[in-house]
Amino acid sequence: MNLTEYIESKHDEHLSDLYEFLRIPSVSAQSEHKPDIERAAQWVASKLRAAGIEKVEIVPTEMHPLVYGESLRAPGKPTILFYGHYDVQPAEPLELWTSPAFEPTVRGGNLYGRGTADDKGQVHIHIRALDAIMKTVGKLPVNLKVIVEGEEEVGSVSLWNFVNANKARLKADALVVSDTGMLRPGVPSITYGLRGLNYYQIEITGPAQDLHSGIFGGAVPNPITILCELFTKLHDKDSRVAIPGFYDDVAKLSAAERKALNSLPWKASEFRKTVGAPGLSGEKGYSIVEQLWARPTLELNGIWGGYTGEGAKTVIPSKAYAKFSTRLVPKQNPDKIVRLVEKQIRKLLPKTVKFKLEVLSQGKPWVAPYTHPFFEVAHNALEEGFGKRAVFVRDGGSIPFVTQMYDTFKVPCILLGFGLPDENAHAPDEHIALENYFGGIKAVAQFYEGLGSL
Amino acid sequence: MNLTEYIESKHDEHLSDLYEFLRIPSVSAQSEHKPDIERAAQWVASKLRAAGIEKVEIVPTEMHPLVYGESLRAPGKPTILFYGHYDVQPAEPLELWTSPAFEPTVRGGNLYGRGTADDKGQVHIHIRALDAIMKTVGKLPVNLKVIVEGEEEVGSVSLWNFVNANKARLKADALVVSDTGMLRPGVPSITYGLRGLNYYQIEITGPAQDLHSGIFGGAVPNPITILCELFTKLHDKDSRVAIPGFYDDVAKLSAAERKALNSLPWKASEFRKTVGAPGLSGEKGYSIVEQLWARPTLELNGIWGGYTGEGAKTVIPSKAYAKFSTRLVPKQNPDKIVRLVEKQIRKLLPKTVKFKLEVLSQGKPWVAPYTHPFFEVAHNALEEGFGKRAVFVRDGGSIPFVTQMYDTFKVPCILLGFGLPDENAHAPDEHIALENYFGGIKAVAQFYEGLGSL
Repeated sequence: MNLTEYIESKHDEHLSDLYEFLRIPSVSAQSEHKPDIERAAQWVASKLRAAGIEKVEIVPTEMHPLVYGESLRAPGKPTILFYGHYDVQPAEPLELWTSPAFEPTVRGGNLYGRGTADDKGQVHIHIRALDAIMKTVGKLPVNLKVIVEGEEEVGSVSLWNFVNANKARLKADALVVSDTGMLRPGVPSITYGLRGLNYYQIEITGPAQDLHSGIFGGAVPNPITILCELFTKLHDKDSRVAIPGFYDDVAKLSAAERKALNSLPWKASEFRKTVGAPGLSGEKGYSIVEQLWARPTLELNGIWGGYTGEGAKTVIPSKAYAKFSTRLVPKQNPDKIVRLVEKQIRKLLPKTVKFKLEVLSQGKPWVAPYTHPFFEVAHNALEEGFGKRAVFVRDGGSIPFVTQMYDTFKVPCILLGFGLPDENAHAPDEHIALENYFGGIKAVAQFYEGLGSL
Repeated sequence: MNLTEYIESKHDEHLSDLYEFLRIPSVSAQSEHKPDIERAAQWVASKLRAAGIEKVEIVPTEMHPLVYGESLRAPGKPTILFYGHYDVQPAEPLELWTSPAFEPTVRGGNLYGRGTADDKGQVHIHIRALDAIMKTVGKLPVNLKVIVEGEEEVGSVSLWNFVNANKARLKADALVVSDTGMLRPGVPSITYGLRGLNYYQIEITGPAQDLHSGIFGGAVPNPITILCELFTKLHDKDSRVAIPGFYDDVAKLSAAERKALNSLPWKASEFRKTVGAPGLSGEKGYSIVEQLWARPTLELNGIWGGYTGEGAKTVIPSKAYAKFSTRLVPKQNPDKIVRLVEKQIRKLLPKTVKFKLEVLSQGKPWVAPYTHPFFEVAHNALEEGFGKRAVFVRDGGSIPFVTQMYDTFKVPCILLGFGLPDENAHAPDEHIALENYFGGIKAVAQFYEGLGSL
């Protein structure tokens, strides 16, 4: 039985093992899930050991533990640093899930559950690929260093500390990550660009306490209204971010890249269907693909203030809040963007209110050429796993670690993504297509084997 | 011992009786408090009986019960309809209360607790005044009809049904209500004008489900942003409501009334201190008193959408919501205002989203002359209770029942308010000044006695 046949024969075992992983609600943003985070780290560590990574440790951090493993028994072969994360986004709003978020369920060829696509399912693809190699070939074809962290969804602070303290130890010939997506069903994809991400929270305070809107309404500053006015002024009528200097450092796409991106087998009609809104809206003068991959944004991610319960309450609240983020593209600088955002907010807000702006996380954008021989191995491995030619794409999401590692080690970063754009990462009913999960295990196994044969 | 002396001698009994009432969390907007609502109605009924209202019934309704009582044993004397409400606003946010909302607590001459000012404390003033008359004089000096409802904070729907079904029975020579405030400490006040209130909830839907802000951000309509833009466009730069026709029917203040209102012993510095915001804001061209009492408003009362929990979640939500209200002044028509609001929202919202607008309640404004002899009785009674001359004021709040009764029966409506503007009605740390509570009992007892002596 060859490697691919072996992987196909273990269909049910892959799934039942993945179910175990998905059932652990390892939500990094919510402190009540701290014990689940610990459990998930233990689970990953034990599975890595079983898949041939002989040295595995759980590294305690100031926040959530990081799992680090090493297998360095392939002298003369490439050393690969694999990165993934075992933490997941909050599952709320729970009532919008068709089946419970932490009870994996198969429907219509998809596996539903928080973390199926982002990123537990994709980490599991690598674990199962290595496990299959060990069970068939008997040894790993390359040297491997593995990091699976627990803070990706909350800014990866401990990861930076770990990397900075272990630079020599982490040295590798390439970084491999599976935390992105395929362009569309049937089109395996290698991602060569990511947006950066700054995440902010703002608090606006008007009156010193909540006020009766009858007795006080008409003469006092309403912090909700002022928050609305602020965010309205942060975009212009062409949906451009209206912050002076925001676009100053944005790298222009070359004519060749622009043409390549706009020629991909990508369908606007599929995108519209996935979004499901009555219409689309985006920055004037750019195609949808450009808006998503090569243009920066400012988005409101949450807003709250005043009475939000059942029925009516006639209150003018003391405070209103918003969470928002800026997605950044090469060569925007996250620190500079923070300064520009804060300056403009300070300028726009009226003197009738106070504000507090917090920066919850920052991350740089990344884009890199795909010319190293490893990319050819990846391209062939994807074709073997999926029976289709792969394409090179960019992604609008952010994996700060990729940027950091690229800047630190200047090695190729190979992003093999097995998600799909409509898989609701970060939303209710997150799922992964089973055909991509199984294709992913086959492709990744071939990829590691291929790197060992270079 | 005369009536006033008797009332003063029962200081502790008044308070311990009021504490019982305040400890019942009769929140009409929250269905989990349904049993408390029932308990509060029973409590009011038993206290009215004890205070000499011989016929008291608890009227079941489609929502919350209404307490109705009658004492018609003063032939030839005026018949007074007293109105109050036993329901209260939600207590949230609970963490902002210094002492628990439903555990009455005295601090610095004030009694703190939900309902102390609005309206349980003021209803209780009447119950204790009648009780004192019964205990000293031995009989009620006027004929009384009493309505204490349980839906004031949620639109008083059942009350209208009750009134419409009992028009003949409710006939009276005057309506008396204590659900308003005093102009400022030491200035007893009679209110002759109220604003109307329409309360709305809007839901904006963009994408069919929550989306990852990395993968989708930049090309899809964000319902939070669009909600913000909508509300920004509903005011102009002079803080006027930017809805065509909104001001068309607004009654202009006469020069005489304008002068009277602006000459009241009202202090802008006290108002600023109560509000506690870094600055005030209101419609250009009007004094604060005019903005509060004689000009209509549109206010956001609540907003929510996207991720509002701990930490960061990079989501573009499917939906965003707001609760908002329009305060109306004579002679605006609530139905017409609903039509204008909906028309403008429909016009302003982009085609990229859907919306749903609900009208949770509607209420007309009211203003009336204070020329009937009963007002002179009230004026003198307040002076006896407080040792100070009373003033005639308007109020920015809404008591739909007053409007309705005035329109139906065309009788004088005498609004004797014992709250103060800084007493946080509808907010955490709601309270009533004990000096006004006790002064109120004395004044109201004198008022009923005075009406009986006309």
